[in-house]
Amino acid sequence: MGGRCARRIHRVDAETAAGRRGGRAVDVIRTVPELAARVAAWREDGERIGLVPTMGGLHGGHTRLIRAAKERDEKVVLTLFVNPTQFGPDEDLAGYPRSEAEDLELARIEFVDLAFVPEAAEMYPPGFSTRVQVDYDEDVLCAADRPGHFDGVAQAVTKLLNLSRADSAYFGEKDWQQLQIVRKLVRDLNIATRIVGVPTVREGDGLAMSTRNRTLGAEHRAIAPRLFAEITRAASRIAQGEPTELACVEAAENLIIAGFSDVEYLECRDAERLRIAPSPGHGARVFAAARLGGARLIDNVPVPDLLAR
Amino acid sequence: MGGRCARRIHRVDAETAAGRRGGRAVDVIRTVPELAARVAAWREDGERIGLVPTMGGLHGGHTRLIRAAKERDEKVVLTLFVNPTQFGPDEDLAGYPRSEAEDLELARIEFVDLAFVPEAAEMYPPGFSTRVQVDYDEDVLCAADRPGHFDGVAQAVTKLLNLSRADSAYFGEKDWQQLQIVRKLVRDLNIATRIVGVPTVREGDGLAMSTRNRTLGAEHRAIAPRLFAEITRAASRIAQGEPTELACVEAAENLIIAGFSDVEYLECRDAERLRIAPSPGHGARVFAAARLGGARLIDNVPVPDLLAR
Repeated sequence: MGGRCARRIHRVDAETAAGRRGGRAVDVIRTVPELAARVAAWREDGERIGLVPTMGGLHGGHTRLIRAAKERDEKVVLTLFVNPTQFGPDEDLAGYPRSEAEDLELARIEFVDLAFVPEAAEMYPPGFSTRVQVDYDEDVLCAADRPGHFDGVAQAVTKLLNLSRADSAYFGEKDWQQLQIVRKLVRDLNIATRIVGVPTVREGDGLAMSTRNRTLGAEHRAIAPRLFAEITRAASRIAQGEPTELACVEAAENLIIAGFSDVEYLECRDAERLRIAPSPGHGARVFAAARLGGARLIDNVPVPDLLAR
Repeated sequence: MGGRCARRIHRVDAETAAGRRGGRAVDVIRTVPELAARVAAWREDGERIGLVPTMGGLHGGHTRLIRAAKERDEKVVLTLFVNPTQFGPDEDLAGYPRSEAEDLELARIEFVDLAFVPEAAEMYPPGFSTRVQVDYDEDVLCAADRPGHFDGVAQAVTKLLNLSRADSAYFGEKDWQQLQIVRKLVRDLNIATRIVGVPTVREGDGLAMSTRNRTLGAEHRAIAPRLFAEITRAASRIAQGEPTELACVEAAENLIIAGFSDVEYLECRDAERLRIAPSPGHGARVFAAARLGGARLIDNVPVPDLLAR
């Protein structure tokens, strides 16, 4: 309990510090042995460890993950790692937004205990050759459009969970499919970490916060909230009994009309196993990925439980 | 230190108990949640955990693994699990020797703290779909003859390491290639377990102890020690400067003449990366797999460091 009280006081300090930009810089660790040593010492002391794995480019969604971890855990490890193995050859690895200095400043303000910021060669040294794959009967949603993407995610997440020896790890619900795959990975491989899904944080106009939003020009930024608006409307129509496919197709058409260059998918699926839900009951969600300018935006919302009321 | 002394006394008790077959039965756990709870409690108490993963059919080689673990760790988990995913469709999964009662008696005598004996469905429940693969440039030694075998090993070992949250895990050097793959797996995935290789235990006539020896009839049992004899002789010839390939080919021919039905490989390779060693320096080993009756026997020995003297 002492720990909990100390943390609450800490939080007040954090808010003060955020105002005056004071306080100590966050500890940054860039190598695996240093991280292992730090984590082993915490383990020895019986500290509960929370992991917030990110690719950097931090925004309000990440802040929410960090705060969820600070609520539950005694030590919070934030990782900033743009994992190359989850990018396809034609994807935006080189252009992915990087902002390490700002990210570490946010980490400091949020009183992250340790930031792990490895180079790719630290995570995948010469001779590295172990793959982790969560197989499904068929590739759906982002797995269809980004072959190999989730294998790269599974590989990096497995490494980060093992390295941090976290009691809990925090993932945003915006990347819903990723969250389900990580849950499955952890269950299948018996990794002793609890996976916590954290609700999507949105801008005032509904746009889901995302690092890739930074790549939107002003014109596209104005159009971007339509993605959330359309999947919300589709979910509402589905909840009221309208045919699922009709609601989804019309929502996709509306996005194209609004200025999106492509809708990779806009579908209603069950929340856990992501199977197509023709007449969705409890737990269905509408998922979408669409291209706007050079950016690929994704989002998802639950189908409201109107019928159950 | 108190723990260490207590353990030494324990060992004396064990030897007494072994004589009179007294003492308490070993704790047997068959489900993942029970194992997780037990391990979590040990972790909480700061106990050092050693894992001895086996497919049962215990023999003197396993006893040595258990004793190595008892030397180093405070709690020793023995697993008896004939892992189906490491057997090919034409292999001897159904006929693999099983002897649970005798195995648990040995575990009791050796003061194993806990035996984990899961059914296959406990390890691979419906919906399980995560693979772990340690890739190499080419498939060598047993990987060539048993496609998918080491993927199954990597998968099961990853699960058992995560489940046991072991500080150390013990593997026999008879399965040298497996030992190297497990080391690589643990390094690549940053699993916080130290992998300890334990020297091969041999019968008086040199035959490496192996569960599969039980399937040998009397006639084949008499021939079996030739495997060790021939690879030892080949290693000695190589150490003295004879051409590696000649030494290996002649050893293989001698095995066929002695009554082995097939020699899958008999090769000199470097100890760690298992690359062919044409003029072996320090650390080369001679590896062999050969069939005798229905059994597939493997063994390996170091090339002595004669040239270095």
